[in-house]
Amino acid sequence: MSSPDPLALARPDGGPPGEIFAREIHEQPDALLSLLEHEREYAALARAIAERSPTVIRLVGHGSSDNAATYGVYAFGLLPHLTALRDSISLSVYYGAPLDFSSSVVLALSQSGRTPDVVEYVLRARSRGAFTVALTNDSGSELEQAADATLPLAAGDERAVAATKTYMNQLAALALLAGGVAGRGADLADGLRSTADLLSRSLHPLEAAVRPVATSFAFVGRMYVIGRGLEFATAREVALKLTETCRIAAEPLTATDLAHGPVAALDPLFPVWTIASGDESLPAVVEAATRVRDAGATIVASGSAADQIGAAYALPVPSAPTPLLAPVLSVVPGQLFAAALAQTKGYDADRPEGLNKVTIAR
Amino acid sequence: MSSPDPLALARPDGGPPGEIFAREIHEQPDALLSLLEHEREYAALARAIAERSPTVIRLVGHGSSDNAATYGVYAFGLLPHLTALRDSISLSVYYGAPLDFSSSVVLALSQSGRTPDVVEYVLRARSRGAFTVALTNDSGSELEQAADATLPLAAGDERAVAATKTYMNQLAALALLAGGVAGRGADLADGLRSTADLLSRSLHPLEAAVRPVATSFAFVGRMYVIGRGLEFATAREVALKLTETCRIAAEPLTATDLAHGPVAALDPLFPVWTIASGDESLPAVVEAATRVRDAGATIVASGSAADQIGAAYALPVPSAPTPLLAPVLSVVPGQLFAAALAQTKGYDADRPEGLNKVTIAR
Repeated sequence: MSSPDPLALARPDGGPPGEIFAREIHEQPDALLSLLEHEREYAALARAIAERSPTVIRLVGHGSSDNAATYGVYAFGLLPHLTALRDSISLSVYYGAPLDFSSSVVLALSQSGRTPDVVEYVLRARSRGAFTVALTNDSGSELEQAADATLPLAAGDERAVAATKTYMNQLAALALLAGGVAGRGADLADGLRSTADLLSRSLHPLEAAVRPVATSFAFVGRMYVIGRGLEFATAREVALKLTETCRIAAEPLTATDLAHGPVAALDPLFPVWTIASGDESLPAVVEAATRVRDAGATIVASGSAADQIGAAYALPVPSAPTPLLAPVLSVVPGQLFAAALAQTKGYDADRPEGLNKVTIAR
Repeated sequence: MSSPDPLALARPDGGPPGEIFAREIHEQPDALLSLLEHEREYAALARAIAERSPTVIRLVGHGSSDNAATYGVYAFGLLPHLTALRDSISLSVYYGAPLDFSSSVVLALSQSGRTPDVVEYVLRARSRGAFTVALTNDSGSELEQAADATLPLAAGDERAVAATKTYMNQLAALALLAGGVAGRGADLADGLRSTADLLSRSLHPLEAAVRPVATSFAFVGRMYVIGRGLEFATAREVALKLTETCRIAAEPLTATDLAHGPVAALDPLFPVWTIASGDESLPAVVEAATRVRDAGATIVASGSAADQIGAAYALPVPSAPTPLLAPVLSVVPGQLFAAALAQTKGYDADRPEGLNKVTIAR
């Protein structure tokens, strides 16, 4: 497609476009290990949460942080069997609804800790009785000052606008915290250590496998990304990476949502990325993949069961030590694919047009 | 674009393609009035819910029903100040997470009452202590048998695959029920009566205004539909209608989500439908609309403030008697636009390819 814009190449840091994004994808195993250095802080805060016996865990964040929150609903549901929800920010911040937060724990997710309406939400929830926790990658932020407690994401400096290692560490942080509340924090920490090792050994082979697939998508304008259950977070995150860095209109859908309308829009020029992991939601994903193929659309699949759904392009990842950690691995082919496709299209994945690292939009 | 398929025209019911969908849009004021004939049943069940002092209201449904559930989060938050959430079906049905439902009320939304995983969810939630209510348009369904109580949607026979009057009556049912729990059921019923009247007087002028706009979208392949707060449900529903009936990849986004990534994909060939109503979320929508215009993209707007955001095409609706009921009116230009555009493209809006009226997909 188009050559890279020569002006975009003249970058103050001197690197080629997309280099930072690609490097940060490769830094993810180390980022996971850095997070695990804070295992005791997570364990202590998990005990504090468990002692409160919260009725609900309220997760808030935007963009990738909101995608991680989708995972948090499952981590808290499956480990300590607590109801977690991605809370409406606008209900509290814009409409001022006087909800009862007295038996709620709030987990506020923000890479920078500077997302204005997340900070405002935390202030209001705290004033209404919630125990509020900031999960952030920057210390000393407004969010940290607003919340009762802070947990570090410890992903290290993230410079590409499109988040990768922050997202991965948010998943890990939520798994570790939910595990701790269930009295299983040490198991989860061990699982994350093994996952970091599996990821470290998979990154280069996956990168090589992804590149030729990405090239064939150079002229694709729209995609669906489907997942179910635990992997719906992955579907949302892969869709966001494709949208931000490759300017594809990529919409995340649950495998079931697809059948309730969107399948009607598919045709052979409208490919579908499918997250397929070997857990209880796989039959729903297999059924959705059949509908996609019947519509003549091409399937790209990632996840540990990527080669079990009749995909034209399968990008399998290793099985995680526990199904709960599968999303940490399943997202990586999507990140690598976005990096390779952005390069093919001459886009700078480090600095997508119209975006900034810290979004201050209402 | 392409002429209608002659086979599609030879329909068993003898009508032209899209006739049923269009007729059902026009039946919506009467559908609202039919629902209001059940005002006392709603009031009685609202009292039963209020007496339980539930910790959370759990809403479940797929497709249009899930879009209505998005509205329910605001109706319950703003009227009785209760936390409502669109619950994860897969957490209970696929993963068997043993959550505590003892202080929960479940509202299960399904036009047919036959959506299998919604029925299964209700059975599990009820066995774990939830008080479960089916809101359905068909009496005697599996969902009705599974739940503790049933409320009729009373939308009348809905034959087009793409829901219109069922969706509208789901919004009205949730407003009426939430109002009843807050002790304001009669106010809401009065508001809905006035809304039905406003809608009745607006339908024909809106249809005339929408037609020439829809024609200019004949070759559009992708769109975003943005809304915020109360109107995010409308954004989801308009996106679903455009996807189902016009085969446009139309993705719903909150006004804030747009800035957190997707704005990077916009260009002059990627139009954005914006729901703009005159409530506390309007400044966020105005800000998002500015970003859209800066990206060179065309805006179509519906809602009572449609002419306040610099849209190329404004399709304003009357102000609802209370901001809470605005979504009942704001969705209508989207329904009429979908009907007109499907006709322009030669698609049968009554029976989109690959869809059935009752979806049994997992």
